[in-house]
Amino acid sequence: MTSTDLRVGVVGAGIMGADHVARITQRISGATVSAVVEPDTGRAAAATVAAPDSRAFSRLEDALDAGAVDALLVATPGQFHEPMLLPALEAGLPILCEKPLTPDSESSWRVLEAEQKLDRPHIQVGFMRRFDAEYQALKQLIASGDAGELVMLRCVHRNPTVPDSYQQSMLITDSVVHEFDVVPWLAGSDIRTVEVKYARRNPRSPERLREPILVLMELENGVLVDVEMNVSVQFGYQVGTEAVFESSLARIGQPSGLQTWRDGTFSVAEHQSYTTRFAAAYDAQIQRWVDAVGRGTIDGPNAWDGYRVAVACEAGVKALGGGVVEVDVPERPAFYA
Amino acid sequence: MTSTDLRVGVVGAGIMGADHVARITQRISGATVSAVVEPDTGRAAAATVAAPDSRAFSRLEDALDAGAVDALLVATPGQFHEPMLLPALEAGLPILCEKPLTPDSESSWRVLEAEQKLDRPHIQVGFMRRFDAEYQALKQLIASGDAGELVMLRCVHRNPTVPDSYQQSMLITDSVVHEFDVVPWLAGSDIRTVEVKYARRNPRSPERLREPILVLMELENGVLVDVEMNVSVQFGYQVGTEAVFESSLARIGQPSGLQTWRDGTFSVAEHQSYTTRFAAAYDAQIQRWVDAVGRGTIDGPNAWDGYRVAVACEAGVKALGGGVVEVDVPERPAFYA
Amino acid sequence: MTSTDLRVGVVGAGIMGADHVARITQRISGATVSAVVEPDTGRAAAATVAAPDSRAFSRLEDALDAGAVDALLVATPGQFHEPMLLPALEAGLPILCEKPLTPDSESSWRVLEAEQKLDRPHIQVGFMRRFDAEYQALKQLIASGDAGELVMLRCVHRNPTVPDSYQQSMLITDSVVHEFDVVPWLAGSDIRTVEVKYARRNPRSPERLREPILVLMELENGVLVDVEMNVSVQFGYQVGTEAVFESSLARIGQPSGLQTWRDGTFSVAEHQSYTTRFAAAYDAQIQRWVDAVGRGTIDGPNAWDGYRVAVACEAGVKALGGGVVEVDVPERPAFYA
Amino acid sequence: MTSTDLRVGVVGAGIMGADHVARITQRISGATVSAVVEPDTGRAAAATVAAPDSRAFSRLEDALDAGAVDALLVATPGQFHEPMLLPALEAGLPILCEKPLTPDSESSWRVLEAEQKLDRPHIQVGFMRRFDAEYQALKQLIASGDAGELVMLRCVHRNPTVPDSYQQSMLITDSVVHEFDVVPWLAGSDIRTVEVKYARRNPRSPERLREPILVLMELENGVLVDVEMNVSVQFGYQVGTEAVFESSLARIGQPSGLQTWRDGTFSVAEHQSYTTRFAAAYDAQIQRWVDAVGRGTIDGPNAWDGYRVAVACEAGVKALGGGVVEVDVPERPAFYA
Repeated sequence: MTSTDLRVGVVGAGIMGADHVARITQRISGATVSAVVEPDTGRAAAATVAAPDSRAFSRLEDALDAGAVDALLVATPGQFHEPMLLPALEAGLPILCEKPLTPDSESSWRVLEAEQKLDRPHIQVGFMRRFDAEYQALKQLIASGDAGELVMLRCVHRNPTVPDSYQQSMLITDSVVHEFDVVPWLAGSDIRTVEVKYARRNPRSPERLREPILVLMELENGVLVDVEMNVSVQFGYQVGTEAVFESSLARIGQPSGLQTWRDGTFSVAEHQSYTTRFAAAYDAQIQRWVDAVGRGTIDGPNAWDGYRVAVACEAGVKALGGGVVEVDVPERPAFYA
Repeated sequence: MTSTDLRVGVVGAGIMGADHVARITQRISGATVSAVVEPDTGRAAAATVAAPDSRAFSRLEDALDAGAVDALLVATPGQFHEPMLLPALEAGLPILCEKPLTPDSESSWRVLEAEQKLDRPHIQVGFMRRFDAEYQALKQLIASGDAGELVMLRCVHRNPTVPDSYQQSMLITDSVVHEFDVVPWLAGSDIRTVEVKYARRNPRSPERLREPILVLMELENGVLVDVEMNVSVQFGYQVGTEAVFESSLARIGQPSGLQTWRDGTFSVAEHQSYTTRFAAAYDAQIQRWVDAVGRGTIDGPNAWDGYRVAVACEAGVKALGGGVVEVDVPERPAFYA
Repeated sequence: MTSTDLRVGVVGAGIMGADHVARITQRISGATVSAVVEPDTGRAAAATVAAPDSRAFSRLEDALDAGAVDALLVATPGQFHEPMLLPALEAGLPILCEKPLTPDSESSWRVLEAEQKLDRPHIQVGFMRRFDAEYQALKQLIASGDAGELVMLRCVHRNPTVPDSYQQSMLITDSVVHEFDVVPWLAGSDIRTVEVKYARRNPRSPERLREPILVLMELENGVLVDVEMNVSVQFGYQVGTEAVFESSLARIGQPSGLQTWRDGTFSVAEHQSYTTRFAAAYDAQIQRWVDAVGRGTIDGPNAWDGYRVAVACEAGVKALGGGVVEVDVPERPAFYA
Repeated sequence: MTSTDLRVGVVGAGIMGADHVARITQRISGATVSAVVEPDTGRAAAATVAAPDSRAFSRLEDALDAGAVDALLVATPGQFHEPMLLPALEAGLPILCEKPLTPDSESSWRVLEAEQKLDRPHIQVGFMRRFDAEYQALKQLIASGDAGELVMLRCVHRNPTVPDSYQQSMLITDSVVHEFDVVPWLAGSDIRTVEVKYARRNPRSPERLREPILVLMELENGVLVDVEMNVSVQFGYQVGTEAVFESSLARIGQPSGLQTWRDGTFSVAEHQSYTTRFAAAYDAQIQRWVDAVGRGTIDGPNAWDGYRVAVACEAGVKALGGGVVEVDVPERPAFYA
């Protein structure tokens, strides 16, 4: 362990947690994984091997008591976020919390209340798309006004397949949740309503799922947004957006890289997973968070963003049942201004 | 005038009619413009100059009485179609009728009734997208089954601007009318419902228009279709479609041609008008119609297709006012099987 | 047969000749195939079936004696061009002669001499690339000066395979011959020298061929040109050019059309043959020639262009043996100014 | 300063050195800039501000005497490399040396001799293209054999402009030097000969330069390589390669990212400088070197690679004067096997 590096405790050593452990250990400057909090001893052991400066703890409290961490990266499934966030906030730790903040708006609100007892926001939420170079270029284009007024956002979010644990409501809470964060961030305007349309069912969809769906949103500024949410496309992982402006058009998310001609075909490989599509975004997110913690701040979506998304998700899940559903978010506390 | 060429009378010598006169005279094999029916003497004179074998008539009846035509190409505005089609059918002439067949389903039905007095369909409707190479490739891909089942069609239809005569309902009757024809042709299934969503209004839209709109359709086979209809995009003319299959994706309508790098930018020219985007399609449509007439048949959308589109347009116009509108088409007459 | 159509005699009814017969009969306005000159009676019969207004002749002289043709399209192999061109010129017929004009500069010169006995050029040579939309756009860009001075042309000419009859020298005389025509046309400057470099031999090349080769040309204006000539690439047919300007870059020949995503890959079909890559160019070439004949002129490369290319081919064939070879073209006769 | 990080001394705090200081400080895991060796006190001060754990030294010897560094990153101009490398080797330090190893093969050989007194290679040379994701994908494709045998490599290397200090020979020694490294690495075969062809001079080239040039190389395995070296293209920075295989084609270096449609044009921004085109490659190079130093090894091109490139550059400079120049490299010492 080093004397000046930020000592990060990673909570949860599943796929995502292990990925973050490797990232911090191998590619992030100014941070060290000092603790792995994970009840599964096999996972914990694997993680501590990957992070030579780290110790394993089965419970967060033990890691806190041992004074083993300066900051926390929470990478457990969403339903376990609140029980980690509350004690971590009480300990005054900077936190990077994987999305979602919590699975519902009620628990998210409790987190907000706990955080507001501190002097400033301590939680950054892991909506990593904001750190993707193409999303950033698109946001800059919108914000600059150079392209004129934005009138529509056309989003596609396509996964090759989903695991067995993926349920119908997760089309919203696990997938569209990203658009619920990134769309207002891009457009500079909150979501007013959500509606869901069903496409013809993909015969390759798991029996329990009725998809693809088309999620329609109206933003406060009138911008119309649609999201094609499609989790059984087989062919690859594709996240793209077309921004329709008053006099121009912009698109992100097209495949790039090595181009080949073979067997009568020109081709480019499409991504197969978010791990490659957003690899650089994950790195940038963590590096900027580490840097921001060094300055006593956060640098990315905060807990209020996490709360708003939770409200939108509840509306979205309701919209799976039909109709146009309002997204009612209370006034933003000055604490998050 | 030649002895074996099909003698075509072009009805209407406005922009579209003059364009067809030039096309037949200069690029179509086996046909000659033998008559121009146009009350405006200036336009008529210009057209007959462009077509040296043609005579001008101010009324269709005169051309018919003179025995001057073997077939008719009707290129007047839609409201004048019925009065041309009925006598032409009575005269037993093969007809290529610019879209729409007529402006409403009632008048279209009258045309169908008149046509059914003949031994076989005589009218082909000018939905030229069916003759575009990319649309044909997409249709072939869908029909082949190679790409798996179709689940969605995502259409964009963007015009740089529209003329002063373009009214709100024409978003449907003049523009989406093309998708009302080509979407069922692609998907092999009729339109069941139509719905309209409004985007944020484009500040460059003419005051009388509220657009862009997003037109949602459900087809009989469950395929969900959306059409971004956008007539003030300024940047160019763009007609594209993404077909979402169970395990693959296909897209048509991307710009192609000369690629340039200049001033830090890689670029390709986008079309500015349907006249370039669909130039080859118009040629192919007319050539194939001329060839089909020689075989005593038609080779393209027939009057029944024109009627169905008229019904869909009425539903679409109604949907501009809100709600999901059913598209009720009667049983197809055996005559058009 | 019609009274006003140009009556075209097609000489040679092999693959290319049959293709032209179909083209004129089905897609070209203002022309009819009135005669097929072909000693092979089977081919001749097939061609006259495809062109209902045509008669078959086994010898050109018979067709001329019968007064059966207004103009001639010569589509025999190159070594039979001169014996067709000389009597046709004597008969004063307009001629479209497939490339090459003749196989060598000496015989081409004899054709030039015969033609100069007439009042004006009667021969157009079938270098159809000049009629391709992308080549035309590139020429226009160069000629406009908008892109600044041209400094290099980087050409690729790739065939999937070649037939058994294709010999080493045909890399130049059958393939690079196209670049020998189109490069000076693009650059507005003649070829000064030719040199050939050998790449590693493609293991899929037929044993008799040593290729791919890189053909280097210096033009009179100093522009450096290279042509990758590659006839066993298997993957498709690709003809492309990059024009390098003082401050910009332009590229033609990239695949376009239906885009698909499948099995982790974004792809576009590449051409497989010149018949699709240059289909529209062939049509445009013939239509414009027919139109030009109607005006008593030609509209494309003339016999002088054919002669210059013959000289360049001789230099190119010599360059296959090594070294930098000069291309010595005599002064252009005023007749071809 | 930390206890486990690799303490890197950066030699030279000009543009490139300062860039590396920022990189190590902000983005590289497991390394700290502990010393900046720079005689210019202003530059040195700026660098130590950017790297809070670092001390400034005006001479390398002082940094070595102070025991301030575990490893050295040499980022001075090439002519100052040898006087830094020799004492650093004597001190047994791991070294990352910016390209070129030294400006000529004689001095490079002296460096090799000094290095061979150590137990293993200590120098890695900063040919960062090997760390670019697209170059790596291309190398993998070639090495896998999946694409068949490689027959040609077609390289373009285009700079918008060059600084006043850029002289004619630097077309080779500063620019093509990259291809001299990366081409054999891609093709798995050394360079046998080098030849230079001159294009028409770009009127925007500085008076002292005669360019663009086309550099032709034959590799030991027969692969033909050309490099368009072009340093006044104005429009952007573009480094691309087409690999021509026996039955397929691959291309890297095409622009990617945000796509826009505006003013009738579809466009994508092209790079303007190597700093953006190869940003990720520079990061990856340094991170992997730091990781490798931790394992007592190097992970990239070694001093022998640097030497071979020096020999090729000398041949290339000679080839600027005309003719085909052999590249004579002695037997590789077993030390670098």
